[in-house]
Amino acid sequence: MQFNPNLADITPYEGGKPIELVVREYGITPEEVVKLASNENPLGTSAKVADAIRANAHKAHLYPDDSMYTLKNALSRHFGVARDQIVIGAGSDQVIEFAIRAKAGTGAAILTAGITFAMYEIYAKQVGIQVFKTPSPTHDLQQFLDLYRKHPDIGIIFLCLPNNPLGESLPTQEVYAFLEKIDPDTLVVVDGAYQEYAAAKDPAYAIDPKTLIERFANVLYLGTFSKAYALGGMRVGYGIARHEIISTLYKLRPPFNVTTLSLVAAEAALNDEAFVAKSLDLNFQQMERYRTFAQEHAIDFIESYTNFITFILPPSHKASEIAQNLLKKGIIIRDLTGYGLNGVRITIGTPEQNDRFLNLFDEVLKA
Amino acid sequence: MQFNPNLADITPYEGGKPIELVVREYGITPEEVVKLASNENPLGTSAKVADAIRANAHKAHLYPDDSMYTLKNALSRHFGVARDQIVIGAGSDQVIEFAIRAKAGTGAAILTAGITFAMYEIYAKQVGIQVFKTPSPTHDLQQFLDLYRKHPDIGIIFLCLPNNPLGESLPTQEVYAFLEKIDPDTLVVVDGAYQEYAAAKDPAYAIDPKTLIERFANVLYLGTFSKAYALGGMRVGYGIARHEIISTLYKLRPPFNVTTLSLVAAEAALNDEAFVAKSLDLNFQQMERYRTFAQEHAIDFIESYTNFITFILPPSHKASEIAQNLLKKGIIIRDLTGYGLNGVRITIGTPEQNDRFLNLFDEVLKA
Repeated sequence: MQFNPNLADITPYEGGKPIELVVREYGITPEEVVKLASNENPLGTSAKVADAIRANAHKAHLYPDDSMYTLKNALSRHFGVARDQIVIGAGSDQVIEFAIRAKAGTGAAILTAGITFAMYEIYAKQVGIQVFKTPSPTHDLQQFLDLYRKHPDIGIIFLCLPNNPLGESLPTQEVYAFLEKIDPDTLVVVDGAYQEYAAAKDPAYAIDPKTLIERFANVLYLGTFSKAYALGGMRVGYGIARHEIISTLYKLRPPFNVTTLSLVAAEAALNDEAFVAKSLDLNFQQMERYRTFAQEHAIDFIESYTNFITFILPPSHKASEIAQNLLKKGIIIRDLTGYGLNGVRITIGTPEQNDRFLNLFDEVLKA
Repeated sequence: MQFNPNLADITPYEGGKPIELVVREYGITPEEVVKLASNENPLGTSAKVADAIRANAHKAHLYPDDSMYTLKNALSRHFGVARDQIVIGAGSDQVIEFAIRAKAGTGAAILTAGITFAMYEIYAKQVGIQVFKTPSPTHDLQQFLDLYRKHPDIGIIFLCLPNNPLGESLPTQEVYAFLEKIDPDTLVVVDGAYQEYAAAKDPAYAIDPKTLIERFANVLYLGTFSKAYALGGMRVGYGIARHEIISTLYKLRPPFNVTTLSLVAAEAALNDEAFVAKSLDLNFQQMERYRTFAQEHAIDFIESYTNFITFILPPSHKASEIAQNLLKKGIIIRDLTGYGLNGVRITIGTPEQNDRFLNLFDEVLKA
């Protein structure tokens, strides 16, 4: 059968291995598995969120409120933006897809950092959009500008701030200065999936969606409930932009794209500020241990504004082998070999998970 | 800003109004509202499903198992098809989107019944695919064949069996005879969202996915958990086809497209056969009341193989006004005026809901 030619060379994205898969493949008990591969919140689901889900479990047969009335109101209050400046997706991932498909058919190409979130490129390929990447793996805005000026067909720029899977971010003022130089017809997507972490680490790196869209008519900000809000399993994210952009993305939104229980969970999560504060505190306190470990083992790392840390391994250690050896011991981390980097990305876990990981990592490095 | 020209004339799909919206707009208490607009299961969420959700509420922070291992196994056993002949979507709706996008860029046009599920056309428009519809609103396979032969560019045929929003279906043998006449390069999507109801009403109308894909290499069968399995809020549906088709659809599947709790809920729902049997029994028993009502009021209706019934109103009654008048009394049904039909679609409810609806409908008709 003849299919869409754009799909010929697409390889589907592979997320971090789920615990169940490691249990099945390596015969390890679920209790022994430590998953530090998907940047899930190590504190687990907030008790208030779990309560809200339980209280609404009997509503699973009812289609979601497709206007997302209460969650949209909550986000509107939280960010100080209008309801019609918000679109809610099945993860911010889905809003990325809307943004790319909204520019398909205009001849627009995409510009991203050298190593960044894999879905930008996968969604682009699905609709036959070309992707330019900076030579620098991390965000180098001068390189972004050079490529942007060299290729007038670039119609979408993705700034992943902080960047997944590398962890770096940029000072807010540098981002604004960059945005001033971009043509108003170019859509700039500021993917803030980890912004809560960046803002907690250094306020000079915080990007406020309201200020951002007031200053720039061509910017789409993305946020997610999957990380600091601990709802990776519920698939809720959002885009914030001027209404002209949001109303176009809405044309690509499938009806009922966020489940009934996900709407309830996200609203409860947004209201549980204490849980988020505790998550952020724990994260940066525990991250110190990873920095110390790296320094003690002469491992390079990228300064992280997120809930993970990326170690660049010396040529004597192959990231793929290290990750595989850890997997056999029940530790799941992210091997970055597929991104063209001899490195691993490790989610900052609970103190106990980090104990276990750092001990076993030390063993594996010495083996 | 310049956007995808295909989006210029798209109007997003509007689902049935949620109860909360009617409460807000008409100041009716939630207890007074009877929603018979979205073909949700009137028995509510199965107790076993609600229990499974509650037992897993604390896992909301964990990304879903993206291989969908256990649900895929359960579906594989249920239908007797291989795991790699199944794709699971955020509702069968999402699998429709995959199917259409998989044929985009091939010059393929789409063929559907005159009045059928609105998303076929909306997804087609998003990617600039032309849609042909039969003159007959219901499925007339001779008209399908005539149009198919007249337009060699038709590359996807949608058979919505039973048909939403009209309710008719076709005998299995007629469907097979039709499929024999279709070119193997044409993808035929058999949308069986309501098949559980058709099979319960008349086994001669049952379509078995295993038999279907064994006989026809070019057919994609769709099923859903939203109707008989009572999971409209959880967004889980599936496609069953030969692996060549499934592997292509997988290239368009966003990662983690089904939530952690939706996977758990769907598996529990599939195992709760008694709940489904009870739902089907209640449905056809209560549907008799609607048939009697229609006959007594000289209202035309379409013989229904689903959990709803479509009344065609006489010119003396405008469907849009009837629906609006019922809404003010807290009854939500589906006005089909937008489909070009002076009719209403009513979900078969619980005995109490049907009492309330039929009484108020009688009042509104006489007003």
